[in-house]
Amino acid sequence: MISRVLSADLPAHIGERVTIAGWLHRRRDLKSVTFLVIRDRSGLAQVVLPPAATCDLPEETVLEVEGLVVANPQAPGGAELTEPAVTQLSGLAKQPPFDLYRPALTAALPTILDHAPATLRHPLLRAGFEVSAASAAGFRGALDRLGFTEVFTPKIVESATESGANVFRLDYFGRPAYLAQSPQFFKQALVGVFERVYEVAPAFRAEPSDTGRHLAQFTSLDAELGFITDHFDVMAICRDAVAGMVESVRERASSAMQLLSATLPEVPVQIPHLHFTEALKLISEASGEDVTGEHDLAPAHERWLCEWSAREHGSDLLFVHGYPLVSKPFYTYPDPARPGYSYGFDLLFRGVEIVSGGQRLHRHEDYLAALAARGENPEPYAGYLQAFEHGMPPHGGFAMGLERWTARLTGAANVRQVTLFPRDLHRLSP
Amino acid sequence: MISRVLSADLPAHIGERVTIAGWLHRRRDLKSVTFLVIRDRSGLAQVVLPPAATCDLPEETVLEVEGLVVANPQAPGGAELTEPAVTQLSGLAKQPPFDLYRPALTAALPTILDHAPATLRHPLLRAGFEVSAASAAGFRGALDRLGFTEVFTPKIVESATESGANVFRLDYFGRPAYLAQSPQFFKQALVGVFERVYEVAPAFRAEPSDTGRHLAQFTSLDAELGFITDHFDVMAICRDAVAGMVESVRERASSAMQLLSATLPEVPVQIPHLHFTEALKLISEASGEDVTGEHDLAPAHERWLCEWSAREHGSDLLFVHGYPLVSKPFYTYPDPARPGYSYGFDLLFRGVEIVSGGQRLHRHEDYLAALAARGENPEPYAGYLQAFEHGMPPHGGFAMGLERWTARLTGAANVRQVTLFPRDLHRLSP
Repeated sequence: MISRVLSADLPAHIGERVTIAGWLHRRRDLKSVTFLVIRDRSGLAQVVLPPAATCDLPEETVLEVEGLVVANPQAPGGAELTEPAVTQLSGLAKQPPFDLYRPALTAALPTILDHAPATLRHPLLRAGFEVSAASAAGFRGALDRLGFTEVFTPKIVESATESGANVFRLDYFGRPAYLAQSPQFFKQALVGVFERVYEVAPAFRAEPSDTGRHLAQFTSLDAELGFITDHFDVMAICRDAVAGMVESVRERASSAMQLLSATLPEVPVQIPHLHFTEALKLISEASGEDVTGEHDLAPAHERWLCEWSAREHGSDLLFVHGYPLVSKPFYTYPDPARPGYSYGFDLLFRGVEIVSGGQRLHRHEDYLAALAARGENPEPYAGYLQAFEHGMPPHGGFAMGLERWTARLTGAANVRQVTLFPRDLHRLSP
Repeated sequence: MISRVLSADLPAHIGERVTIAGWLHRRRDLKSVTFLVIRDRSGLAQVVLPPAATCDLPEETVLEVEGLVVANPQAPGGAELTEPAVTQLSGLAKQPPFDLYRPALTAALPTILDHAPATLRHPLLRAGFEVSAASAAGFRGALDRLGFTEVFTPKIVESATESGANVFRLDYFGRPAYLAQSPQFFKQALVGVFERVYEVAPAFRAEPSDTGRHLAQFTSLDAELGFITDHFDVMAICRDAVAGMVESVRERASSAMQLLSATLPEVPVQIPHLHFTEALKLISEASGEDVTGEHDLAPAHERWLCEWSAREHGSDLLFVHGYPLVSKPFYTYPDPARPGYSYGFDLLFRGVEIVSGGQRLHRHEDYLAALAARGENPEPYAGYLQAFEHGMPPHGGFAMGLERWTARLTGAANVRQVTLFPRDLHRLSP
């Protein structure tokens, strides 16, 4: 390994000669002196060239710099490198589409995405991905502690089930096949094997709408568990997963959060919850418009409910449960006490739905009845329904889109900003 | 949550009335008494029905059993449940294709795979997936400790680069696109952003060969890091990742390993390594057949080298490095001291190559030259090559197939046995 000290550790080496290595973040030619700012994964380090020395290397060129560490309260971290010997490690760097050293982002999103290999190096853009990585680790850690097993399931499936539309079709050794929109069927079957499972994996939707919250590929955080009493058990596990994600971001990515001026939510021991019908009543009373006949929440309603939750409960998180059966997938468990309503739920966070979940049907005959009630042919579901013939406990689960969560958490207006090389209707590269 | 005690915890409740829940693993009707064996995620529990009582529920039906815990040295764990009240939680289970309660597996692989939602419940089959989950967690943990950032990259790509053949083609909003065979290009570009990255994600190969070690979808454990001196730095990180996997299996899945009669390898602080040319010399000397002109290792050679490593170094693991350039991808760094040879390596484990890696080219002009030397048009690689125009440090990385690793570790003859719902030339469901 190139023997070097990370920028962040320079203050511990004052008075020593050390080597640092990283990207030439900025070259500052002042009248009397030239500074080089070197960026590595830990942060920035300032290098002072000797009087009269200059540097004509372009920014983003990779350098190794050997020199003497000297205390300087003006330098990042309070230390800088003097008497430097500079070695070039990369080719001469081509100029990025905008100056990466300026603290604010000066480019529009398409420019950022078109040149992602260079632009993602900007500390503000990079920070979102540190939050994302910490979130995924927190999700896994929380569920590991709760006795879940991690699984890896197929992303190529035989039939375009579940939502039917919006699937990508591919040529599978001469036969048609589809990219999985979710691991739904697999994770349910695996409750029969492990009782509690989770998966962190790509999911695919041929999403024709070009909004700030949809992607053709997203990272789905999925969990499913058996031996539940009802959907409130699933909501409790979902709460623990979210709390684990928040804790992990606090531990692993607090400087990224600070850089983004983003704040972590408090996750109450019990996240406030509202039945779907109560939610519509509250909205109707507040708006003066009767929405109690609706079957789903409009984006404006989700925003209003989140404001209500923050105001009434001091919580950025709110469960809405008991959605009408018609607005939830066919495998959703019906509420035995309220015909037409289900044991499905959503978790809203800062104005947007970030989790969908619920109790599922667990008896084979109930699946056949639910498909028949929707006028669907059970034949394409044969592989899926197999598990339910062999004894399945009452179970449920939930799914969260990592990018949407990260966008809400960091205040990114568009999920693409917190997606590495996003894929959408118009974008297939880089 | 259904309030219950896990089977494994029964001995701590002797003298108490408790509830357990799980699958009816086995019903044993003896002359004087009937036993029910209940399986949950922690193990097995024995339930004794009162004299004259019988049970006609089929095996695999999900039950809740309330009863009195009584010590019995003959019962699993030394305790059993008496005076039971049995509640049925699932529909009546259809019989699996073979008896899941028999300790040995009595079915052939195709039967197991066709009925995976039921057959994977067999403790011997389930055990492999616990090893797999523990391995993935160990990979991530080791690299987290080494300052790596987890990334999530696109699985849909614009051009069929890298190996060209063996890619799945899909319809992407009316345009052709391909499933990614590896995150190679993305992880390299992200070294420019994070210096050290890893990804655990599906990779896809339209593999026409129907062998025991190939799959159309596998789980790729990928890592890439910058600021290396040469490929030995990558091999050192690869060693730490493997050591972390082994440690994690020891901590999280030791009972699964025991059930499978599988043993963990010792991971030496430095895994023995051989240059490709030395390896061929050893094989030639041992076999009496001159293979020193070969460009790659045949499977029989890999097996022989592993036996040699076990014999000479007491190690189940062996690095072979310095493969000829022609047998490694175009982005492999050439050995400046040995024309025609590269800084690419493989890690062999118990007879099979489980890791491929190496130092990569890092200068833009070297990529153009390498493509030209192979007579390849650089145009489809434009998105890939972008990163190298903007300053990239010397870097390298490696990839491991999780299923192949787990198969070697657990002694599974076929990777399909340690893959949840495998996909191959012939298999697209369940």
